[in-house]
Amino acid sequence: MRQDHLISATQLSRADIEAVLDRAAEIDADPAAWHGRHSGSILGLCFFEPSTRTRMSFDTAMKRLGGRTTDMGAVESSSVKKGETLADTMRVLEGYADALVLRHPSEGAAAMAAEFVDVPLVNAGDGAGQHPTQTLLDLYTIRENAGLDDITVGIMGDLKYGRTVHSLASALTNFDVRQEFVSPESLRLPRSVRYDLHGSGAQVREHTDLDGVLADLDILYVTRIQRERFPDENEYRKVAGEYRIDAEDLDVAKDSLTVLHPLPRVDEIAPEVDDTRHAKYFEQAHNGVPIRMALLDSLLETDTEGDR
Amino acid sequence: MRQDHLISATQLSRADIEAVLDRAAEIDADPAAWHGRHSGSILGLCFFEPSTRTRMSFDTAMKRLGGRTTDMGAVESSSVKKGETLADTMRVLEGYADALVLRHPSEGAAAMAAEFVDVPLVNAGDGAGQHPTQTLLDLYTIRENAGLDDITVGIMGDLKYGRTVHSLASALTNFDVRQEFVSPESLRLPRSVRYDLHGSGAQVREHTDLDGVLADLDILYVTRIQRERFPDENEYRKVAGEYRIDAEDLDVAKDSLTVLHPLPRVDEIAPEVDDTRHAKYFEQAHNGVPIRMALLDSLLETDTEGDR
Amino acid sequence: MRQDHLISATQLSRADIEAVLDRAAEIDADPAAWHGRHSGSILGLCFFEPSTRTRMSFDTAMKRLGGRTTDMGAVESSSVKKGETLADTMRVLEGYADALVLRHPSEGAAAMAAEFVDVPLVNAGDGAGQHPTQTLLDLYTIRENAGLDDITVGIMGDLKYGRTVHSLASALTNFDVRQEFVSPESLRLPRSVRYDLHGSGAQVREHTDLDGVLADLDILYVTRIQRERFPDENEYRKVAGEYRIDAEDLDVAKDSLTVLHPLPRVDEIAPEVDDTRHAKYFEQAHNGVPIRMALLDSLLETDTEGDR
Repeated sequence: MRQDHLISATQLSRADIEAVLDRAAEIDADPAAWHGRHSGSILGLCFFEPSTRTRMSFDTAMKRLGGRTTDMGAVESSSVKKGETLADTMRVLEGYADALVLRHPSEGAAAMAAEFVDVPLVNAGDGAGQHPTQTLLDLYTIRENAGLDDITVGIMGDLKYGRTVHSLASALTNFDVRQEFVSPESLRLPRSVRYDLHGSGAQVREHTDLDGVLADLDILYVTRIQRERFPDENEYRKVAGEYRIDAEDLDVAKDSLTVLHPLPRVDEIAPEVDDTRHAKYFEQAHNGVPIRMALLDSLLETDTEGDR
Repeated sequence: MRQDHLISATQLSRADIEAVLDRAAEIDADPAAWHGRHSGSILGLCFFEPSTRTRMSFDTAMKRLGGRTTDMGAVESSSVKKGETLADTMRVLEGYADALVLRHPSEGAAAMAAEFVDVPLVNAGDGAGQHPTQTLLDLYTIRENAGLDDITVGIMGDLKYGRTVHSLASALTNFDVRQEFVSPESLRLPRSVRYDLHGSGAQVREHTDLDGVLADLDILYVTRIQRERFPDENEYRKVAGEYRIDAEDLDVAKDSLTVLHPLPRVDEIAPEVDDTRHAKYFEQAHNGVPIRMALLDSLLETDTEGDR
Repeated sequence: MRQDHLISATQLSRADIEAVLDRAAEIDADPAAWHGRHSGSILGLCFFEPSTRTRMSFDTAMKRLGGRTTDMGAVESSSVKKGETLADTMRVLEGYADALVLRHPSEGAAAMAAEFVDVPLVNAGDGAGQHPTQTLLDLYTIRENAGLDDITVGIMGDLKYGRTVHSLASALTNFDVRQEFVSPESLRLPRSVRYDLHGSGAQVREHTDLDGVLADLDILYVTRIQRERFPDENEYRKVAGEYRIDAEDLDVAKDSLTVLHPLPRVDEIAPEVDDTRHAKYFEQAHNGVPIRMALLDSLLETDTEGDR
């Protein structure tokens, strides 16, 4: 792995991914041992788009490592409003921090920003582009619950627009994983993503109905179907209803099935599922902390050793 | 006291209250001794409604204990806007923090949230409901200035809508305190609050005019009369003017009278009063820090000892 | 220097300025040595007006000293909206922090607030008034690049409205510096500033064109010409175009010329200049951290020694 920036999950080899996951597992086993490890470092949080969980989990991760954060705040109150370019803003902010986290509404923003800054930069989502730490925490949660070898992963919901799905599907091709995609016809995987998956030799199938595959799954990864994707409210309700999971649906699943969701959910998973052994989506969200601790630790170590 | 959540001042016995107040007094006597006591802990600040002083004083309190905070930020930029339920949001956030502080516009929100999270949760105000740390700092300030036995406390202003007043009045029934309520007829204590106070055997009287009781008071607790409570601007001005305190008014008061106000004030207390020996409302606001340090210390100690 | 507040650069003597600059240079030489120096202290950030770089660089500076910060947040979500006066707000906030930084849209706000608080207060910009830490970091950057004796400084752009320019020009009169002001006729230095500069015996000239003086300059300080200063878009474009610097313009300059800008820039300096040896505006922004560390260190040391 390049030690300086993390822009896309696609830049990570299987070995890179496993290194981060292994370190996250070490952290999870004894979090207190990692406190104070980066007590002289500051992480800059540059969110050009609102975010609660990603921002807070980077913030927490840095603080659990003993470090500090400095937050750019909302774009409405920043110098961006005065016409400053992203390149200029990032070049100023790198002077305040030992590493930067960037979320931006424009695809490609993180790669562009990385050209201008010398401190490590982590992409925390660039529009329809990449969100590599989400992929890492998804992989970590899958590995903790089912391993990453010889498993079947179902991915259901909006497969067309969700960057989370595309990135996860791509990363899973590094492992011995069968992927079953379930979505309405109108929200199928984009052709380019399908093409890449097949090109990598992945074992991939597509379905419009969960029934035929649910019993085979080790992991069911559910995503939100957004109202705004449908011109018509009734059409949305009908589709959303068909791709909703409740406790009864899970009767046919393996005992060991793990249900995941990148959150926030709206109606995709009935609240009753929360109390079943299958529900691991809150753990998944919480795994963002050890994963980001592991990542920050790897980005900061070469950068700060010796001088603080 | 239940060690895990603080939802309402009514859950606190006299002994519970005195334990927090005693600890706050210890902290006040030697703040530096408490620094570093919770250096491995993170407090999550979940303000679903704006707040300056409550948020900052929790933030400061945690930092004075050596801990860190992570702030959810404004609701407008959170996943709440995507339709996430409060229960889901809180279950995600508990993964980031060792304790949570919640302010929410809906009465009952804190009690509901507490059902879903395992880390200690502190209610920092739930609409017309409770705000127990405000009550604790009010009691602390009263005790520091006049003791909590055999005293007379006047409470003046908007007694109908103010949750601060209801909570304080209720908490004072644990002590040997005479309560004199002063308000316009239209902003009297609600019947339910009066009923509870009488039911607890409290020594309570109501007045429409401060003149008759001011000379007897050890504490005068003034609250803001809000413009929006009156349909008519003239009516508001007339009423607000009658329940305003200036330096001359205080000529008949005891030398030892202490004037308090939960702040922010608008016109209820003339600025000239600030320079008299009676004015203790800024000290009262500052007491939010040792009180919240004491409370956080009690909530965190069972939770974090040993593992960090 | 008064140890308690920094309201205006004009309160600083040459010796005061040099003391801060010397300390910043010490910090720059070995930042790690300063970490932990104020680990028990909290800085209150009170920005009544948005700011990215000033707020973040104070935030970073305090954290690089090992301290903490507590942020008032946006004014829209503060008790200011409930009608609280600035004096009341500041008197509450001083109870949370060991020092306060204030930015406010009204000229004179910092001087007024300083009357009410006992902790050190730093003016981080009060409308058209003062912004003394910007002046200090400008002086620091000039000294690092050209020294502060027997040099020629050109200041170009909006000289009429920019508080940065007025404050820098005034501070430079403490040193052996020739000042060359370059602006359109409509954005000349205000008469009062000119009068003060001449009164202090400064070597000052005014120009409407850079060409005649560029070759003599050791420093060229460029400022932004704001669209809103012109009633007419075409007039703005014409003027802005004339006071824009590109790489070719700099062919006639000294090899050692240093180009500065308080940022954010829009079009005043072509991006191609960024790659020349002359461009030091990002370094200038980064110098905000050691300068503010030096200042905070001087304000906090007398205040906190012994008791934390």
